[in-house]
Amino acid sequence: MKLYDYFRSSAAYRVRIALNLKGLAPERAFVHLRRGAQRDAGYLDLNPEGLVPLLVTDDGAALTQSLAIIEWLEETHPSPPLLPAVPLERARVRALALAVACDIHPLNNLRVLKYLTGTLGADDAARDAWYTHWCAVGLQALEARLAREPATGRCCHGDTPTLADVCLVPQLTNARRVDLDLSPFPTLLRIEAACLELPAFAAAAPSQQPDAE
Amino acid sequence: MKLYDYFRSSAAYRVRIALNLKGLAPERAFVHLRRGAQRDAGYLDLNPEGLVPLLVTDDGAALTQSLAIIEWLEETHPSPPLLPAVPLERARVRALALAVACDIHPLNNLRVLKYLTGTLGADDAARDAWYTHWCAVGLQALEARLAREPATGRCCHGDTPTLADVCLVPQLTNARRVDLDLSPFPTLLRIEAACLELPAFAAAAPSQQPDAE
Repeated sequence: MKLYDYFRSSAAYRVRIALNLKGLAPERAFVHLRRGAQRDAGYLDLNPEGLVPLLVTDDGAALTQSLAIIEWLEETHPSPPLLPAVPLERARVRALALAVACDIHPLNNLRVLKYLTGTLGADDAARDAWYTHWCAVGLQALEARLAREPATGRCCHGDTPTLADVCLVPQLTNARRVDLDLSPFPTLLRIEAACLELPAFAAAAPSQQPDAE
Repeated sequence: MKLYDYFRSSAAYRVRIALNLKGLAPERAFVHLRRGAQRDAGYLDLNPEGLVPLLVTDDGAALTQSLAIIEWLEETHPSPPLLPAVPLERARVRALALAVACDIHPLNNLRVLKYLTGTLGADDAARDAWYTHWCAVGLQALEARLAREPATGRCCHGDTPTLADVCLVPQLTNARRVDLDLSPFPTLLRIEAACLELPAFAAAAPSQQPDAE
């Protein structure tokens, strides 16, 4: 297996955590998003979406989209599980993960921030306000759910990490980059702290990657 | 089962298609997004995310996030399948679905468009240019994949509809609302036409819903 990665991509960070939790250590390649390496012809040929992460399997299949990659890892390397066994519980975990992956992260993506300042002419303050707005709106909804639902444990669902934690922790890292006040999210912070005690999460952090700047 | 729906929500449209394909006809409730009904206290109590769709099961569990709902439907009502049996193929289908759900749709959401015009002060032309830009970028990537990959058939994956088609068709409906030129996407248009021949897709269209305006 080979992971095409970028230290600061929170979608890649999700896959790094999942690989670590599964005890897998694929070969790595680094795609420098800020320098536009995702638009090189060679990379676009592998991944026409021009995004990271990309996981190339031992058979040469190129898997895109972090959540699809993690579901594939779950199906092919089921232990330890990142999804519960019961369909309703699986739905809860996936919904929490998608609340990050669909409702927060896409709005904070580098390409989107570049469009705001480049094409729409927003200044840095307006760009940062956008970032913190969508982060706060999304995290508020997650805090509300996780604080009130009895299925929440030491992690988002029970006491061991699932796909939901794999998405939440990188999003909180992002939120800190724009100095979002995280004090309204005590449940999220408690879960993040529990996850970061695990080597699989700690070793996947952007600052710990070979391409970190 | 009860589906909280809004005719123009493309995430709700996905769930309507999946329910139709599975032969399920839940009770319906309509949440008028343009009038802000998703922020009513009663609805927020059901769904703190303040979004549609929401599916309440017969046991009273409230399922959010369209893709999590559809995966739950797939696990609890497996026939006809909306995902292939083989993990690599499931990964392909999920990646195509997520390319819509994470990389296109979140940027074209009503709440995002309102922020652009309301908070950032973009005019209608700039808002529409934003919408068409992200739609075009995302559809180009999908067209590139679907046109070249041998797994593409009459539908996105093979000849019967999967989760990928369930996401693609509503996104193309959205693209038409802003008059995006779809001629660069012949593969997507061919797949859309094949899907819309199926009653499950046709009956789920926004114009066919009881709350359509």
